[in-house]
Amino acid sequence: MASAAAAVQQSAASTDFIEQPFFPNEPTGPMIKTEIPGPQSKAAIQQLDKVFDTRSLNMMANYQHSIGNYIADLDGNVLLDVYAQIASIPVGYSNPSLMLAATSPEMASAIINRPALGNFPQHDWASILETGILKVAPKGLDQVFTGTTGSDANELAYKAAFMWKRRMERGGDPNAEFTPDEISSSMNNHSPGSPALSILSFKTGFHGRLFGSLSTTRSKPIHKLDIPAFDWPQASFPHLQYPLSEHVEENAREEQRCLDETERLITTWHLPPAALIIEPIQSEGGDNHASPSFFKGLRELSRKHNILMIVDEVQTGVGATGKFWAHEHWNLSDPPDMVTFSKKAQTAGYYFGNPDLRPNKPYRQFNTWMGDPARAILFRSIIHEIERLDLVENTRRTGEYLYEGLERLSSQFPGEIENLRGRGQGTFIAWDSPRRDEVLRRAKGVGVNIGGSGERAVRLRPMLIFQRHHADILLDGMQKIFKS
Amino acid sequence: MASAAAAVQQSAASTDFIEQPFFPNEPTGPMIKTEIPGPQSKAAIQQLDKVFDTRSLNMMANYQHSIGNYIADLDGNVLLDVYAQIASIPVGYSNPSLMLAATSPEMASAIINRPALGNFPQHDWASILETGILKVAPKGLDQVFTGTTGSDANELAYKAAFMWKRRMERGGDPNAEFTPDEISSSMNNHSPGSPALSILSFKTGFHGRLFGSLSTTRSKPIHKLDIPAFDWPQASFPHLQYPLSEHVEENAREEQRCLDETERLITTWHLPPAALIIEPIQSEGGDNHASPSFFKGLRELSRKHNILMIVDEVQTGVGATGKFWAHEHWNLSDPPDMVTFSKKAQTAGYYFGNPDLRPNKPYRQFNTWMGDPARAILFRSIIHEIERLDLVENTRRTGEYLYEGLERLSSQFPGEIENLRGRGQGTFIAWDSPRRDEVLRRAKGVGVNIGGSGERAVRLRPMLIFQRHHADILLDGMQKIFKS
Repeated sequence: MASAAAAVQQSAASTDFIEQPFFPNEPTGPMIKTEIPGPQSKAAIQQLDKVFDTRSLNMMANYQHSIGNYIADLDGNVLLDVYAQIASIPVGYSNPSLMLAATSPEMASAIINRPALGNFPQHDWASILETGILKVAPKGLDQVFTGTTGSDANELAYKAAFMWKRRMERGGDPNAEFTPDEISSSMNNHSPGSPALSILSFKTGFHGRLFGSLSTTRSKPIHKLDIPAFDWPQASFPHLQYPLSEHVEENAREEQRCLDETERLITTWHLPPAALIIEPIQSEGGDNHASPSFFKGLRELSRKHNILMIVDEVQTGVGATGKFWAHEHWNLSDPPDMVTFSKKAQTAGYYFGNPDLRPNKPYRQFNTWMGDPARAILFRSIIHEIERLDLVENTRRTGEYLYEGLERLSSQFPGEIENLRGRGQGTFIAWDSPRRDEVLRRAKGVGVNIGGSGERAVRLRPMLIFQRHHADILLDGMQKIFKS
Repeated sequence: MASAAAAVQQSAASTDFIEQPFFPNEPTGPMIKTEIPGPQSKAAIQQLDKVFDTRSLNMMANYQHSIGNYIADLDGNVLLDVYAQIASIPVGYSNPSLMLAATSPEMASAIINRPALGNFPQHDWASILETGILKVAPKGLDQVFTGTTGSDANELAYKAAFMWKRRMERGGDPNAEFTPDEISSSMNNHSPGSPALSILSFKTGFHGRLFGSLSTTRSKPIHKLDIPAFDWPQASFPHLQYPLSEHVEENAREEQRCLDETERLITTWHLPPAALIIEPIQSEGGDNHASPSFFKGLRELSRKHNILMIVDEVQTGVGATGKFWAHEHWNLSDPPDMVTFSKKAQTAGYYFGNPDLRPNKPYRQFNTWMGDPARAILFRSIIHEIERLDLVENTRRTGEYLYEGLERLSSQFPGEIENLRGRGQGTFIAWDSPRRDEVLRRAKGVGVNIGGSGERAVRLRPMLIFQRHHADILLDGMQKIFKS
């Protein structure tokens, strides 16, 4: 790797810090033995296709052979993985600390004795929450409702918002009884029992694929076609121009336009919103960013009009932006009402702080499993590993280094890297590419597994153990593709 | 246990088979040391309530101390558990065979390297499916889409049904392209892209609590109040009179009435159904049964009107009715289009057979995790354990024995056991009780953990390892409560 990037890395390292590899037994680089998929993988894909849809298959992986930042396939190919199971692997494949947790008697019992947590929690559930999920709770939020996936987490948050909004409409009294009309109409899916309320989301946002969450998802038609949806409102998300420093005024005007539109929808939509939901960085929808002042504006609007603000940190949460939660970048003095999480947490749910967000009666927010203690135990170990190795700081620093390298590449190949974005957001970096799908495909040939987002963005979602020497491999690989 | 029930058991056993305990290290009976919750549990509940809603809490359990059919709490109380985590524990707490699977290197890798199955499945995913989930696929259904919970499984099935129905409306051509109007309207949640279609469900049915599944759930207002819902149709579920043998004609008329109403809704509802969904036995809604001819009638109606039939086996599936799938009791010549599962499977998803139920393009039915290999590996072990111990047959036989015992109790205490139901349905037995909540509460005092369903049913949901000697303990306990 006698590349320019490596040379820069060496000199930066000498004046900055000496980088210790987190995974001493990681491969030193990618290894490409066959085209991908190779013959073994092709045979396995053919077998799998008989019983399971494989048309979205990207690689047939062997996880027992995958280590740290490297994903292995069935043909002996080993790729640097900066997609990481759609941003879901936090601290590396086959991480030894997680392996200890996964082979503990506590984990075995959690796997085979899965409880109905709402009825029969295990004796140490409070401790598992307090030393894990709640230890990293966003500022101002000290309670959690656990779930199973990001979509599920968002829908649970929507339900909490609707129950809260109806309580407010009843004057806020937690002891107010439901009227006979509410009770009977709810069983017919009609108002007032099933209220004429909505969740406001933003264009090109993604919040999941279940019926409620999909109604708030606005990323791509392929997610939504043929599926009935609620007639809920969508506001414009700012469409910023890059580089940011050259478009300060236009971008501020654009954000104000979106705030005005949001306020108009909150006050005029025929199904009034109980909450708005927003991603700190729209991920699936194309890596769209907005400034802290935009999000502060949303917090003010939601307070002004008495609706809740839900921050969807399913993809941005757990360290990837150089903060544990991406919304910490905003420095809100008034925290969001709810923050949802999943993916790198390897479990899911929503945080909240306001006691009014506990429904007024039991069994209103409830389901059989209400999460999975096995996954909560794993998240606790992930948190310990992040702290032990200071991985949020690692991600912040590696992100800076990677961003600088991409800036240089973008000067060198301006037709290949457009609208580079994510400065100061850890490794949560993306750019637009005029030949995106070709770049992603050819990346495998240079030993890197990368994903896209939106129509034409290349999105980087490395793990939190991604270091400078991995960034060098990625930068070299990109350079090779752009040169060719 | 010198009880009448035990005496019957002895004589039955001698002419029938000698019962070998499946769990040699199980307690020989319940042990009650304190009131429930006892002092240790109360302290733990108080601690948990600070961060997690405990108002639906039933018992604070210690699963490491729970074995086989017995659940242990923090105060040393040990109860025979015939509720089993809302019907979700299949082969006993701390089952040694499952423990082997849970501590295998394969499981550890699955826990810490959770893949995005649709993009990066693990190399042995086909084998895990074929030797597990698909080995027990209902007749006629040879493919599976994996998910995470029962609600999720049902919503995935609904999405498959909507995509299928729209394809049929386009003439069935899998290569028909979406129109520009469909594409743009779908992004606004409007028809035709978000079609004006529905899922038909049945009164007092339960299919989950997410927004789509909750729109089909009609069990209790507390599940539905304040949550927006789709204006989807609900048909009456037969309200049978007991004992069945004394009400043959009325019940047949009642079932025909419900079939006629279903047909009327299919042909006239303003949002035409793409599918109907039904439970073989309505569980959460009060343990409501119907005859095989009713279900055959639904299969005929759904064929006649070109809509799909989804059978929700989330609670009835995996052996509890004395068949692996409860709908096998119907002897349909034409299988259901989809069957959903969760709970005792410890994973979730839907089975289907028709290739048309694979959407015409990738990424239409998709999400990040698409299930969990760890849970699929566990289900494979559960299936092996069920086969090794012949547990479906055990459940059929124990169910017969238990039903007879309850019939005797119901003659003895006719005011306590009304509308006893579930004959020939394994241990999936219930009855109505004029003082249901008191019976459930007092059951703990005699060492048994039981659940309710609907407004006044006592529902039995023992595990598949429930044997005659456990049935005797349950019958004795009930007798004590009824006598008091």
